[in-house]
Amino acid sequence: MNQSKMEKLLVVKIGGNVIDDDQKLSSFLRLFAAITEKKILVHGGGKLATQLAEKLGVEQKMIDGRRLTDAETLKIVTMVYAGFVNKNIVAGLQALGSDAMGLTGADGSLISAHKRNHPSIDFGFVGDVDSVNSGFISSLLQLGKVLVIAPITSDLNGQLLNTNADTIAQEIAKGMSQSYEVELIYSFEKAGVLLDVHDENSVLKNINVASYAELKASNKIFAGMIPKLDNAFLAIRAGVKKVIIGKAEKLDQLVNGESGTSITND
Amino acid sequence: MNQSKMEKLLVVKIGGNVIDDDQKLSSFLRLFAAITEKKILVHGGGKLATQLAEKLGVEQKMIDGRRLTDAETLKIVTMVYAGFVNKNIVAGLQALGSDAMGLTGADGSLISAHKRNHPSIDFGFVGDVDSVNSGFISSLLQLGKVLVIAPITSDLNGQLLNTNADTIAQEIAKGMSQSYEVELIYSFEKAGVLLDVHDENSVLKNINVASYAELKASNKIFAGMIPKLDNAFLAIRAGVKKVIIGKAEKLDQLVNGESGTSITND
Repeated sequence: MNQSKMEKLLVVKIGGNVIDDDQKLSSFLRLFAAITEKKILVHGGGKLATQLAEKLGVEQKMIDGRRLTDAETLKIVTMVYAGFVNKNIVAGLQALGSDAMGLTGADGSLISAHKRNHPSIDFGFVGDVDSVNSGFISSLLQLGKVLVIAPITSDLNGQLLNTNADTIAQEIAKGMSQSYEVELIYSFEKAGVLLDVHDENSVLKNINVASYAELKASNKIFAGMIPKLDNAFLAIRAGVKKVIIGKAEKLDQLVNGESGTSITND
Repeated sequence: MNQSKMEKLLVVKIGGNVIDDDQKLSSFLRLFAAITEKKILVHGGGKLATQLAEKLGVEQKMIDGRRLTDAETLKIVTMVYAGFVNKNIVAGLQALGSDAMGLTGADGSLISAHKRNHPSIDFGFVGDVDSVNSGFISSLLQLGKVLVIAPITSDLNGQLLNTNADTIAQEIAKGMSQSYEVELIYSFEKAGVLLDVHDENSVLKNINVASYAELKASNKIFAGMIPKLDNAFLAIRAGVKKVIIGKAEKLDQLVNGESGTSITND
């Protein structure tokens, strides 16, 4: 297909700090509902899951920011992500005129995953993505639906799996880039990729393959950002047109290029 | 459309006692997955919600078998029905080769509802159904999806509502009867409509409008069954071809007419 004729699709990952805060969530949803292009929202809900686990006395263990997911924790994240958070976002978007529809990766075999097989750490019921059913997603988008996706997948053998929401957003963006001009937006609490982590005004407006190589060579990128940026460039290489990183409360400006960091091929 | 040319659609309501029991659920899902016609499964999950409410110390109040749904209880039923129960059924069906997809009434504006306005009882966030988006359901069935529906709806103004699963099954069956030859199956713990409530062998095999009038006139129907049967005849009058009531563990025989009570027009 001629890329210039492809329709635009925005895949937006909403950061955890927005989901935990009713007011922030409601203004974010207003900005998201106002986007006129086809769109998909991917969310997590980690802090709410942690709160429920505390109330239920289910101890939570984290390694490198990843939740170890035992059977009880899987039950909790399934209830919180696929139930409470997903359906409240759906209802909130509908009130704003979006024909929103909530899904997990398990629904309609949207995402195939397998239980993580790590050489030394048993992450429990944590899923790594194998493939995205882009034809099914296209069908739902063609029906005019706005998709809201919770980070639960299944292995197609009956096992639900807790799956990283950033990864799901990236895999969906990659999978859809055959049929759409996809922009992947990571909205979080920072203004973008910063040259100085302590200075919110030091946002890098654009990074491309060439400038990223220079920035890395001269140690100008904060180490914590490197895995995120490496992933962004993997998405670009797989066909995603642009990855945008910036503040959730400026989603409108992230979409129109007035805020955040844009990551592109060239 | 010529009714004889309509494709068959089975709308199956699964009883609460099956959902609470892993073994019963798994054999029920095997029977459900084996149905070759287009199909929709509607479930509740009341006992699991009650258990979670107890663990969280949220007091549950019932009036006439209906749960009074305050804000905390709404959160619990949304987590249990739309999250835990719905996604586990979806994953279970996928393992059996069904391309299952979980939804609530809120998703894609599948069902429009309003908060119940009762003259004397405040049921809280309980929904009564206004309409069913049968075009959307048809589109999903045409995509080959097996729909699994949790009894949460929204008022399209952002409010989620706890809604009776029997009612949802009935409204979906009625809504779909314009485009499909619909059979509505209520699977529960009894063998069907019994002439003698203490005798599981006294199942009435068929009831039609004429025989129902006679049975009622001669007081041969157990009073508790009358509202269910009145509802079944309302569904028939609205275009549903057949309502079948019987044992969940005999779902295959309910479908082929070898078990349970069949309720038809004539």
